[in-house]
This record gives sequence, C-alpha cells and structure tokens, in this order.
Amino acid sequence: MNPAVDAPHESSAPTLAVVGATGAVGTVMIDIINSRPSVPWGEIRLIASTRSAGKQIPVRNVLHVVAELTPEAFDGVDIAMFDVPDEISQQWAPVAVQRGAVVVDNSGAFRMDPDVPLVVPEVNAAAIGHRPKGIVSNPNCTTLSMMSAVGALHHQFGLTELVVASYQAASGAGRAGVDRLYAELAAVAGKSVGLRAGDVTEALTAAGLPEQSPFPAPLALNVVPWAGSLKADGWSSEELKVRNESRKILGIPDLKVSATCVRVPVVTTHALAVHAVFAHPVSVEQARKVLAGQPTIVLTDDPEAGMWPTPAAVVGTDPTYVGRLRQALDFANTLDFFVCGDNLRKGAALNTYEIAELLARR
Amino acid sequence: MNPAVDAPHESSAPTLAVVGATGAVGTVMIDIINSRPSVPWGEIRLIASTRSAGKQIPVRNVLHVVAELTPEAFDGVDIAMFDVPDEISQQWAPVAVQRGAVVVDNSGAFRMDPDVPLVVPEVNAAAIGHRPKGIVSNPNCTTLSMMSAVGALHHQFGLTELVVASYQAASGAGRAGVDRLYAELAAVAGKSVGLRAGDVTEALTAAGLPEQSPFPAPLALNVVPWAGSLKADGWSSEELKVRNESRKILGIPDLKVSATCVRVPVVTTHALAVHAVFAHPVSVEQARKVLAGQPTIVLTDDPEAGMWPTPAAVVGTDPTYVGRLRQALDFANTLDFFVCGDNLRKGAALNTYEIAELLARR
Repeated sequence: MNPAVDAPHESSAPTLAVVGATGAVGTVMIDIINSRPSVPWGEIRLIASTRSAGKQIPVRNVLHVVAELTPEAFDGVDIAMFDVPDEISQQWAPVAVQRGAVVVDNSGAFRMDPDVPLVVPEVNAAAIGHRPKGIVSNPNCTTLSMMSAVGALHHQFGLTELVVASYQAASGAGRAGVDRLYAELAAVAGKSVGLRAGDVTEALTAAGLPEQSPFPAPLALNVVPWAGSLKADGWSSEELKVRNESRKILGIPDLKVSATCVRVPVVTTHALAVHAVFAHPVSVEQARKVLAGQPTIVLTDDPEAGMWPTPAAVVGTDPTYVGRLRQALDFANTLDFFVCGDNLRKGAALNTYEIAELLARR
Repeated sequence: MNPAVDAPHESSAPTLAVVGATGAVGTVMIDIINSRPSVPWGEIRLIASTRSAGKQIPVRNVLHVVAELTPEAFDGVDIAMFDVPDEISQQWAPVAVQRGAVVVDNSGAFRMDPDVPLVVPEVNAAAIGHRPKGIVSNPNCTTLSMMSAVGALHHQFGLTELVVASYQAASGAGRAGVDRLYAELAAVAGKSVGLRAGDVTEALTAAGLPEQSPFPAPLALNVVPWAGSLKADGWSSEELKVRNESRKILGIPDLKVSATCVRVPVVTTHALAVHAVFAHPVSVEQARKVLAGQPTIVLTDDPEAGMWPTPAAVVGTDPTYVGRLRQALDFANTLDFFVCGDNLRKGAALNTYEIAELLARR
C-alpha cells in the first residue's frame, strides 16, 4: 500500500478513485464527496465503463472527465471505491490492488472471503486492519440498512437471533429499477386497478411497457417476495446475504438468522421489521439509551404523536432511523422494531465512502 | 335461535341479513352470494345506515332495496352478517340476537369475549357450537389472511412460536383507504419523487390532497409501520389482534407471537412474512404435502420458475396462497414462508359468509 495513505499530509494527500462513477450508487458517492465540509483527498479520479467515459461531472466545484476503466487508470490511486457488478469487481479489483490501490468494494464478489474484511465503521472498524488482499468489502444494502442499530444493540446486550422481513426499494435494482417503478406508476395511475387478479399486469401491457423488467413481477400496487437469485433450498441470494454478512460483521459465526426479502413500490430507502433476541435482559428504556447514544442513529419513536420512520420521510439522508421499539410480549430478552435507511447512502455509497475515509485517516 | 336454521328445509330456508351492505366488505359479501352456484337462504335482506338506505342492489338477479338499520329490520332474520364499526356492532348485534338472529360479526367488538367463538371454518369449525351470546366473531383480516395455512401446519406439527411481518393493503382501511391510495398515486405519477425526504408529502400537498387521510403518513411510494390504534407499551391494536386472535383460533393460549404490522401501497390483498416454530420436526416436503391437501390453500412455490404469490396476482380470489416455503437454516423445527390472501374476501367477507353457511347447514 502507498505509504501516503497510512500517513497523509498536505503535500501527499491520497488519491481517491470512484469506479462506476456514473451509476446510481456512484452518483451518490460523488454527492457525498461534494457535500462534505472537508475531504482528505488530493486528486479525485472518476472511472466508468467505455460507454460512460468522457462524461463531465463536477466534483467539489471542479469539472472532472470520466476516465475509462483500464489498468493504467489506477496508476497513482491510493484508494479506489468500486460500485460495479460482481464480475467486474472480481476482474478489476485485483488489477487496482496490483497498481497500488486499496479497494473498497460494494459488490458481492469478496464479502464472504475470509481474507477480505466486511466493514461498517461504527460496528467493526478494527476489522479493516487485516486486509491481506488489499480489498475491503462493503456489505449488501439490506444488511447495511439495519446494521448500525443491530450492532449497537449487540454490543450492549449480546445478539443471539434475528428474524427479519424486508421492505426493499426499487433503487436496490439500480437506475433501471427506479425507471421501471416510475413507468409502472404512470401506467396504473388514474385507473381502478389492483382489484382483480392480473389487472395490474394488464394495465402495464396496455400502456406499452416491455414485459422485461428488473423485477420478476409488477411492482406498482404490489409487493414481490423476491430479490436476487435462487440459492439452495429455496432461499434467495439476498436473504442469505442478510444472514451471512450479519454474522461476519457482528463477529457471531453462530448467529441464528431467518430473513424474508420483499421488494416494495418505494423508490429509495430500505425498511426492515426486526425481531432481535439477546443473551441478556433488555428493556425498551435501555435500548433507547443505547440507540440514542449512537451518532449514526436517529430514534423516531413516539407512536402517540404518530412518529415512526417511513422511507419517504427519511430518503436522501445519512442516518439509520429506528422506531416502533417494543419489548416482545412472549419472548425473553427480545426486541421488535422497525428500521429505515437510505439504501443508496448508508446502504451503499455512504458506508463505502466512510470506509475509504477510515483508510485515508489511519 | 330459530329452529329453521338448525334444520333447514325447502319451505323454511333461513333468512340472511347483510348489515353494512354498502361498505367495502358488504359489497364483497353480496358478490360472494351472487357468485355461489346455490345458497341455503330463503329471504336475503340488505341493511345499512340511514345514509345508504333506499339504495337498490341486485342479489341473485333480484333487485333488493337496502333497509335502514332498525330493531325491526331483524324481525324474522335467522343469521345476520355484520360488517360495521366496532361501536355499531357493540350496540346492534345484541339487538339482532334479541330479535332471534345469530350474528356473525366482523368487527373487533366481540372477538376476545370468551363467550363468543372466533371461527375460521377450516381451522376450528367445532368452536361454533358454543355461542351463549348468539354471536360468532370473524377474525381480523390480517390474522385471517394467514390462518388457513398456519392452522393446517399447526394441526400437523404443533405450532409454538410465530414471528410475523405484514404487508397490508389500503382496503383494510375501507373504501376511504382505497380512494386515498388512488388519489395519492395520481398525485405522484409522472414526477421524480421519493428521492428526497418529504418530497412525496410535498407532491400530495401540491396536488391539493387534503392533509387528513385514512393513513397516518403518505402511502404512495412509501410503507407505513402502523395500523390501528396505540395500545400499551408501543404495540398497535392490529399487532395485538394478530397475537391474541391467533392464540384463540388455534386454541394455544401460550402461543408466542410477535407481529409488526405495516401498510403498503397495494389496493387489496394482505401479505405476511411468517416465521413459524413447531413442537415437532418439519421439512418443506412434509409442509407442502399438508398445505397441498387443504382445499382452501394454493401452493404457489417454484422460485426456479419465478413462482411465488403476490397481492396483484391473487386479488379478488378466495384461496390463501403460500409460497417461498423454506426450512429455517438456524432454527429447529422452523419454517419461513410468505402468504397472501385477499383481505376483503378470505380476510373478511368470505370467511364471514362461510361461517354463516356453516350455521345454516348445521
């Protein structure tokens, strides 16, 4: 690794690369860089596929030209944030490492590799120190959207079981997902559909929407119990990510997890209903105190005043929002709660950027 | 009770009343009566509030005039199906009983009364025999939408724990809920909203939608973790209904239940992610066999072929649909699955009608 990163100073501030700079998450990465009062970077380099190379994007008031993804693009780069498909990360992260960069990767390619730390800075920052492959992985957006809250509670009460149901936004499937949801909404708006089996599908067809979609069923006026690809025994890849990544981030290899992942017609911000069992007794009062002490968490929990987080109310912001905090009536040491987090920010770009800053400042 | 109901025959077929005949659920009750090949009823009487009295509605090809809710309206009625607010049931069900009717009530007024059976015919038909108050209660729509499936599995494997997260449709809040969802969809369609905190609310305001809504937050492009009213310790009435009614219907007073109830922008059909723990070992294969043997259940479970139930695909039909059936990876004797049921049909009108027919045929 470039020594400039371990001991940054004015004259050798590290160079940051954003790979996948024009995608849904890459765009938010640049928003975050632009909105920070100060950044530890010298040069900032934007990199994308051939299709997007040459585009001009302002970064901290300077117009940057997007460079094409080539081995040479990584020369002189200290830290490279990747948000690209798994197979592109698989191929290009080692290239960037070979050219001297530490890679912070937001694909699924390396997350479960024992030689790649999987990091949420406020939960397991120390894990970043052991990175023999020069790669640090950013967790899946669904796992990440609850991890601040679950991690804080675990550190205090010792998590043993998680039962999770997700309400996942369309942007988890990228720009194409958002475009599709908007197109479907336009096709059903002003019509009395959703009252008869198949009439939503008919309305989409009548509006001329292509049958091919980023989602495996209509998302407008619907919820779809599927995200990702099919794994063994009927589990979806998304559900296994929630299980396996939670275990790795929290350092609980035998954590019991069942997740059901469901896509909902929300543009951005994942929500999760969480049933969390702990080793030690826990009250709502104690849990509130722990969560309120976390700078990354906002407690929005006053049902009497109609206050709990919803995706539309928190989208575009950084924190993890927790509400509906209840002590389970029939389960010992158990909390039920509802958590929302912007899947493009804390769920992707923000956490990736936080890892990059953590690397730059160490 | 009128003896004609216990032993119906041609010349004395029982008289059925539909109370709340013009509401969202009452309308579906009449649809169901109209679509049956044969019915055990003699006279069918439609009853509603003063506001709706006088309306003409066809029932089995005969135009019926809606009568006003008065004590006399129940004279000669053998079975009265009620779908009205709790306080109207509280007041009027005893009046109907006094006039000789058995009441099948779909409000929350009597469900937890130990002298009122809470019935799902395919799960606990026998409970109907003990009805000292002359009232039989129909469960809450969220509980009902999963009860066929959960009941069948319980009878075979002995249910001990339920962790449930709901995806509840707008029509659970009646016609006003459906109208509001459509109005909100029209207000956001064609706009790039849902990307910034509060912009959905702004779009609704800009479109002139009244702030007052059947829902406590925007439902378009959102999910809202609240249904019902606030009960002790932060629980919603809807969540406690799922717990308490499941215990009563299944006859498991110590069943462990945690439910998180969430409203989603779907017109009709509730869905639930269910984590069910049993006393006895259970495999997916065994569970499939049990569910496939139930005439009220449709297994839609082949993820390889992209098959699982969604609200938009099953709305307007009678069965309970089960998919995403998985054996929990980390919990003994545990199944995770996703279940959909039309909240106006099996979740309300259909089950109420099935109870009424059960009474008529006994």
